[in-house]
Amino acid sequence: MRGDPFKPAARVANQRQDVWSIVNEAAVKSPVQPIVNMGQGFFGYNPPAFVVDAAKQALDRVECNQYSPTKGRPRLKKAIANSYSPFFGRTLDPEKEVTITTGANEGMLSAFMAFLEQGDEVIVFEPFFDQYISNIRLPGGEVVYVPLQPPEKGSTQTTSAAEWSLDMSKLEKAITDKTRMIVINSPHNPIGKVFSKQELQAIADLCVKHNIIILSDEVYDRLYYVPFTRVATLSPEVAELTLTVGSGGKNFYCTGWRVGWLIGPEHLIKHVSAAHTQICYSSVSPLQEATAIGFERADEEGFWEESKREMRQKMDLFNEVWDELGLPYSDPEGGYFVLVNMAKVKLPEDYIFPPHVAERPRDFKLSWFLIMEVGVAAIPPTEFFTDQNAHIVEDWLRFAVCKDDQVLETAKERLRGLKKYIQ
Amino acid sequence: MRGDPFKPAARVANQRQDVWSIVNEAAVKSPVQPIVNMGQGFFGYNPPAFVVDAAKQALDRVECNQYSPTKGRPRLKKAIANSYSPFFGRTLDPEKEVTITTGANEGMLSAFMAFLEQGDEVIVFEPFFDQYISNIRLPGGEVVYVPLQPPEKGSTQTTSAAEWSLDMSKLEKAITDKTRMIVINSPHNPIGKVFSKQELQAIADLCVKHNIIILSDEVYDRLYYVPFTRVATLSPEVAELTLTVGSGGKNFYCTGWRVGWLIGPEHLIKHVSAAHTQICYSSVSPLQEATAIGFERADEEGFWEESKREMRQKMDLFNEVWDELGLPYSDPEGGYFVLVNMAKVKLPEDYIFPPHVAERPRDFKLSWFLIMEVGVAAIPPTEFFTDQNAHIVEDWLRFAVCKDDQVLETAKERLRGLKKYIQ
Repeated sequence: MRGDPFKPAARVANQRQDVWSIVNEAAVKSPVQPIVNMGQGFFGYNPPAFVVDAAKQALDRVECNQYSPTKGRPRLKKAIANSYSPFFGRTLDPEKEVTITTGANEGMLSAFMAFLEQGDEVIVFEPFFDQYISNIRLPGGEVVYVPLQPPEKGSTQTTSAAEWSLDMSKLEKAITDKTRMIVINSPHNPIGKVFSKQELQAIADLCVKHNIIILSDEVYDRLYYVPFTRVATLSPEVAELTLTVGSGGKNFYCTGWRVGWLIGPEHLIKHVSAAHTQICYSSVSPLQEATAIGFERADEEGFWEESKREMRQKMDLFNEVWDELGLPYSDPEGGYFVLVNMAKVKLPEDYIFPPHVAERPRDFKLSWFLIMEVGVAAIPPTEFFTDQNAHIVEDWLRFAVCKDDQVLETAKERLRGLKKYIQ
Repeated sequence: MRGDPFKPAARVANQRQDVWSIVNEAAVKSPVQPIVNMGQGFFGYNPPAFVVDAAKQALDRVECNQYSPTKGRPRLKKAIANSYSPFFGRTLDPEKEVTITTGANEGMLSAFMAFLEQGDEVIVFEPFFDQYISNIRLPGGEVVYVPLQPPEKGSTQTTSAAEWSLDMSKLEKAITDKTRMIVINSPHNPIGKVFSKQELQAIADLCVKHNIIILSDEVYDRLYYVPFTRVATLSPEVAELTLTVGSGGKNFYCTGWRVGWLIGPEHLIKHVSAAHTQICYSSVSPLQEATAIGFERADEEGFWEESKREMRQKMDLFNEVWDELGLPYSDPEGGYFVLVNMAKVKLPEDYIFPPHVAERPRDFKLSWFLIMEVGVAAIPPTEFFTDQNAHIVEDWLRFAVCKDDQVLETAKERLRGLKKYIQ
């Protein structure tokens, strides 16, 4: 007899309710309906017509509805290699240097599964995308955290996301004999920072010195408003150690399609492919085909430039309300999130929060208050920090601006209601 | 310094080339083109129009292209609960007893991840679906094998797939203090056996006695040609321990859609959902929506009956050629695979096989020979056995009949060319 047969494995036991379900469940309960949900980073509009049409046409083709090769459809790997070769400054081999995954998320899990043994360490910057943590732990890895520091004047004036800084001595101290990988995310979620070439070079030098694999999460790689350097392009030595992660969902406005990829040298990619095969076997066929056609046609459609221009316009349009309210924000260099500092917002002292919010840092309370009283949902970023460092961002909230302009205007109108709480 | 930074984790190192790529690569090299590929179990035709149309319509809806809830789209969970409640003889709770996964494959991995700790044992019958093995090992589980025995007269006369038998004393001996789960597959791939109620009861009694979770892979659950019992329906005690796995890809002819699900009691399903969230986060949205509509409309379209009738017709149509050739086969009770016994086929003594085939059992040579000389691809089933037990099926080959009738006729015409090799 094994005792309780229903006992879960430690990896899934005792999970704290995640931020997405806390925010989404609160959004449903808000008296202000329909809520403007700027929480989770999904798009409020459809993929471009040339991509949707490609998906519909793929659905009519027998082979596009059946299993794809485990490493991905050849057409998609080729389209990605063609699209990314100019960025990488060399011709990528679609068969050996690109592998398709079930979204960037499962792609990162595949990378950790490919290289981590029990007890191996992975360095992750705070704030982090929360899925990194469980993805590292599933294969037995240990997360080692290094916090990014907000701009010194971030609570009193609007600053550039560039001013979030990494203390290189802290990073160097975090490296041990067990450090196997590091995760870099640029453009960064939720900060919106695009790491400069100098910053990346300093990180990469350490990785080359210590033989650390770089997993570069570049899912917002088409949305940058300052020069964007891909860490893999710094030098051949760095390229040998780097896996670059991309996302069809982020590139083409379809986060529910679950098409992602990794680009890197054959000696790394082949193991990622093997891990992916064990996890998901293969990825969704008709939407791989549509994503391939998306890449093939994006340039002639002028899609990448339009995409970037539109998102920057949305960002500027939305952030006007913070200027009006006198609330400082961290002006993003890339991506579609903006972090706003709400230190000046005074929550009513007698306001009653439900226990699962009351026990969390101030940003959870700010988020709850905005959902219930203002009708706008945003994400509390302490979720992306360890408890120890959560205080760093307890006055900030993350807003996703990838919504229709009209929705952004509604959000602004509602947020003006915050005025009476600002001192 | 950590030494070789490119060293893969043990779980992906030293992988033998899998049977699918061996067969598919050989198929490409065959002088007989186009090859008739009856190897991998993908469909040679499209999903029904009402499902394809539903997918196209979903692509026009903004929310169907963005993240779905991690546990699946409410509409799909409800459609599955409604469709399966009659089979289960009770009303399934769509929110608590159904969870959506990225294909049945990732669903099974999620179940193993949810319950297995390092060193826990899982009993698997041989032949097994090959993905089970890596899925069990990823969370640190150990596979314990129990072979099914072919019909005694299987090499001399056509027999029913029912005659493949499980030695219950072997199963009982395989149970240890570390046995945490057992995998059952009915209708069975590749055998085509539908386990009888009595067989399932005997297995389930052992599981109840020893507190073993039953993972019942029922992905061919709409294709049975004899009465089909779902193990979860045997008794409330068995239901408490059982997770039932289903597949949209198998049900609706779209193996590339990657929509699967698990049905079971809340105390098991909630942990599977948690594991799935860590692995893939969420599953493909527009195809979840289309699968939901498929379930909603299947009965009124008469789809399930038509699907079963058509597949049985294909099976009978194809198997005529074995009767003509005097080659015995195992007549399936369910699914779309047929195992054919080729003991009577004499391969030319001087025939030269490539090394990666020559080193494998006789069924790999038979498969290669058929691909190269006849132009029909089939799967060697020793791949689904341990090396120790591979001899049990070294004279058999597995053919998938889920192809257009015209393709089946071409295959038959080609297979008649085997006559001169039969003694």
